[in-house]
Amino acid sequence: MNASHSMPPATTEEQTTSGVSAEHAGVNELFALLAYGEVAAFYRLTEEARMAPNLRGRINMATMAAAEMNHYEVLRDALERRGVDVVPAMTKYASALENYHRLTTPSTWLEALVKTYIGDALAADFYLEIAGSLPEEVASIVRSVLSETGHSQFVVAEVRTAVTASDRQRHRLALWARRLLGEAVTQAQFVLADHDELVDLVMSSGEGLTQLAEFFNRLQHTHHSRMQELGLA
Amino acid sequence: MNASHSMPPATTEEQTTSGVSAEHAGVNELFALLAYGEVAAFYRLTEEARMAPNLRGRINMATMAAAEMNHYEVLRDALERRGVDVVPAMTKYASALENYHRLTTPSTWLEALVKTYIGDALAADFYLEIAGSLPEEVASIVRSVLSETGHSQFVVAEVRTAVTASDRQRHRLALWARRLLGEAVTQAQFVLADHDELVDLVMSSGEGLTQLAEFFNRLQHTHHSRMQELGLA
Repeated sequence: MNASHSMPPATTEEQTTSGVSAEHAGVNELFALLAYGEVAAFYRLTEEARMAPNLRGRINMATMAAAEMNHYEVLRDALERRGVDVVPAMTKYASALENYHRLTTPSTWLEALVKTYIGDALAADFYLEIAGSLPEEVASIVRSVLSETGHSQFVVAEVRTAVTASDRQRHRLALWARRLLGEAVTQAQFVLADHDELVDLVMSSGEGLTQLAEFFNRLQHTHHSRMQELGLA
Repeated sequence: MNASHSMPPATTEEQTTSGVSAEHAGVNELFALLAYGEVAAFYRLTEEARMAPNLRGRINMATMAAAEMNHYEVLRDALERRGVDVVPAMTKYASALENYHRLTTPSTWLEALVKTYIGDALAADFYLEIAGSLPEEVASIVRSVLSETGHSQFVVAEVRTAVTASDRQRHRLALWARRLLGEAVTQAQFVLADHDELVDLVMSSGEGLTQLAEFFNRLQHTHHSRMQELGLA
């Protein structure tokens, strides 16, 4: 099926009212992108855990990292059921995700904590936005791998304590959080620019460009509320 | 209850025929030791994954590491139900486990793979031997965190291929595997020497020293069969 988004295919059992079929080529790409994201996050969390001031911090990071790999396994299995081998499928997304992490390498434990919290939340915003207009069988997989695990709640307490005690720390971390948002948006744009099937999936899943503009507004808004949660705004 | 192993306490509802109660102080110690073992293995696997020749190898290591943290969570929850905070409880086992890993730092990817396979299996031998004579509620937790996940099966194929192609590699890895056994036994002895509650648990769980001698025989035997599986004996 090669239907373009400007001319959606006739509705069948497999499709939702959005016109996106579960067989859309972009779905495999979305799963592969998410899968690499989980692996990259796993290795970054374990790397950044070296900055933890104590065993409890290191364990919290390891627990979050393990959750990423559990999510990876869900995506790997979903791709397998669709006849796709996850490793070759996801390597094409390596550069964008590695670039994001390389350009946002934390230099302190607090920066690592903020990155975990803001980064996870931004990823969830992006993907859940797309999932909202996908067929339920696809959307439920996306939602399950982005589900709020509560693991990153330990971040809130630790960051709030630090920024309450120090204005300098608050300003510094607020700038850091803004930089995370900027790099995430930049890399998301690179990914979309390079992968037509993904663009097609995003565009055909709703009202296209209008929806995209609204999306970036919502992203700013939710980012701001998370900054408040952390005591950074 | 301060019954020594030479004079087992009267049997109650909480006890099995082995005479070990689920309330035995050694049970908390056993869980704490296992918990630190999982965390140490997690960080070692992610460290050793750097030697992986490709993404698939790195992902296999990450998947195994994630399984260790899932097991850690089972132990943390079990200790919590027993009113014990896992982090302070397990720190006393840090030095023995970190020493084992430090003294068996692999210098090649194949050494890392062999360590994963042999090390996991040795740990399972040790703990399952103890679990065999513990009350079922305790034993089932020990068994669940040591359950064969099948994750390390990928090791067998890769090591066999390498040692079939090279006698030098086979000799080298056979020596390495023997060293892993030696260091594991040494560190296990250090742990027992330092922690009376654990010795008491092991001793009161069966026929004491006689059983211990038989245990080391069995350990040699199962170690040998694993060497054969890997093509190293």
